[in-house]
Amino acid sequence: MESNETMDPMNGTMAGGTGQGAAMDATEMERKMKECLDACLACISACNHCLDACLEEEHAAMMKACIRLDRDCADLCGMAIQMMTRNSPFVKEFMLLCAQACDLCAEECAKHDHDHCQACAEACRACSRACMAMAV
Amino acid sequence: MESNETMDPMNGTMAGGTGQGAAMDATEMERKMKECLDACLACISACNHCLDACLEEEHAAMMKACIRLDRDCADLCGMAIQMMTRNSPFVKEFMLLCAQACDLCAEECAKHDHDHCQACAEACRACSRACMAMAV
Amino acid sequence: MESNETMDPMNGTMAGGTGQGAAMDATEMERKMKECLDACLACISACNHCLDACLEEEHAAMMKACIRLDRDCADLCGMAIQMMTRNSPFVKEFMLLCAQACDLCAEECAKHDHDHCQACAEACRACSRACMAMAV
Amino acid sequence: MESNETMDPMNGTMAGGTGQGAAMDATEMERKMKECLDACLACISACNHCLDACLEEEHAAMMKACIRLDRDCADLCGMAIQMMTRNSPFVKEFMLLCAQACDLCAEECAKHDHDHCQACAEACRACSRACMAMAV
Repeated sequence: MESNETMDPMNGTMAGGTGQGAAMDATEMERKMKECLDACLACISACNHCLDACLEEEHAAMMKACIRLDRDCADLCGMAIQMMTRNSPFVKEFMLLCAQACDLCAEECAKHDHDHCQACAEACRACSRACMAMAV
Repeated sequence: MESNETMDPMNGTMAGGTGQGAAMDATEMERKMKECLDACLACISACNHCLDACLEEEHAAMMKACIRLDRDCADLCGMAIQMMTRNSPFVKEFMLLCAQACDLCAEECAKHDHDHCQACAEACRACSRACMAMAV
Repeated sequence: MESNETMDPMNGTMAGGTGQGAAMDATEMERKMKECLDACLACISACNHCLDACLEEEHAAMMKACIRLDRDCADLCGMAIQMMTRNSPFVKEFMLLCAQACDLCAEECAKHDHDHCQACAEACRACSRACMAMAV
Repeated sequence: MESNETMDPMNGTMAGGTGQGAAMDATEMERKMKECLDACLACISACNHCLDACLEEEHAAMMKACIRLDRDCADLCGMAIQMMTRNSPFVKEFMLLCAQACDLCAEECAKHDHDHCQACAEACRACSRACMAMAV
């Protein structure tokens, strides 16, 4: 194994033999996972910032659905990072569930004009696309 | 708040008023956190790949300390991402603990010649430095 | 709301209106969730003990599938506790995934004669049943 | 190792050689850990229920400190369950941090008359005591 490969987070999916890498070229798989890991990190950040900012809004009670979905989405994206990099046999099912959470959170955040909600909706939509690409 | 700010994961620490941002210029704080979030993601990836690869090594029994520390380090780095982006009052204490875990994991991985161990040691050392920078 | 109700962890699913409690009597729902929370805690304990003990076995290399599934199962059960008590809209899908992980872990552990593997298989089977009861 | 021992979640701390069990009788250690695992589970449930119920209160804006601390406390207690049962070298430092979070959350919840806040304060105080007992 070459050093540049071992330096690469993506190798997590190459080892361990779940065979999920077999369906496509390894380099393409690595690119997709790197994109998804970055999208999950950005989504965690946007969801947690949105949740925190929603609590500061004048009408926090109106934001409760947003707050609940921000929390679930941030936590599922955090576990998605673990599942992808540890080469879990459950990674595809998990990425599908994570994409669902991102979609629901994006749908709710998009209803609110706050910059943090609009930014969160955008990060969630991008993360959902990246998770779906990992789930196929 | 400007859109480009709300797009920025770093804003998590600006909102919510734990005052941890007050000690330094906001832009500098954002830069440090962005570095730490990226370092934590790289450390999770390196630790989980190292753990997975250690289990495939001929002498897995020799790697058990490495496997245990890889797991703790990956999980603590994952929670560190959450604590930083949600602006937790416990973030500084948590980053200190995370840095300790990175240091111990780096120390153990450095003992082994496997590429995945050497790569993990390097990622852990870089993450420890970034976590310490967030803890002050 | 009465104090004894608010003292009850189960109330998490009664509030927040995902309506998952609507399909059955609230008391029955509370009983099922209490059973599932206890089963998840026992499963986390058994999986983490089994993982730790597998690393001490003479033929740790033979235990690698067990070690990987123990880790996934423990982490999914931990998140299942969060999803159930926070009344997440994703709780049913998550409990299904958690039950799958428990089944796979039980199947692998059952192959090994070690006491810790047999004990883990039993805890995983019980947790899978409790998770399935929450998923309907 | 006897079957009744391997069935016991507590054994996690006996294996792996962090030596934390050496300071006291194993049975006493097992009793203390069982108490702490149950207290953490009850605290997660109470914090998540309190958070969910706070979002439904008329003056949710007044509850934002409670909501933030409920989330941190529930997540730290969840990781505490993992650290205890996996026999982590960081368990004592982690239990100290978890106890701090429980104390802060209890202090905030105690300020509010809502049944869910009072119940959460009680669960947090009990969990803090159990975590401190594990940290010594």
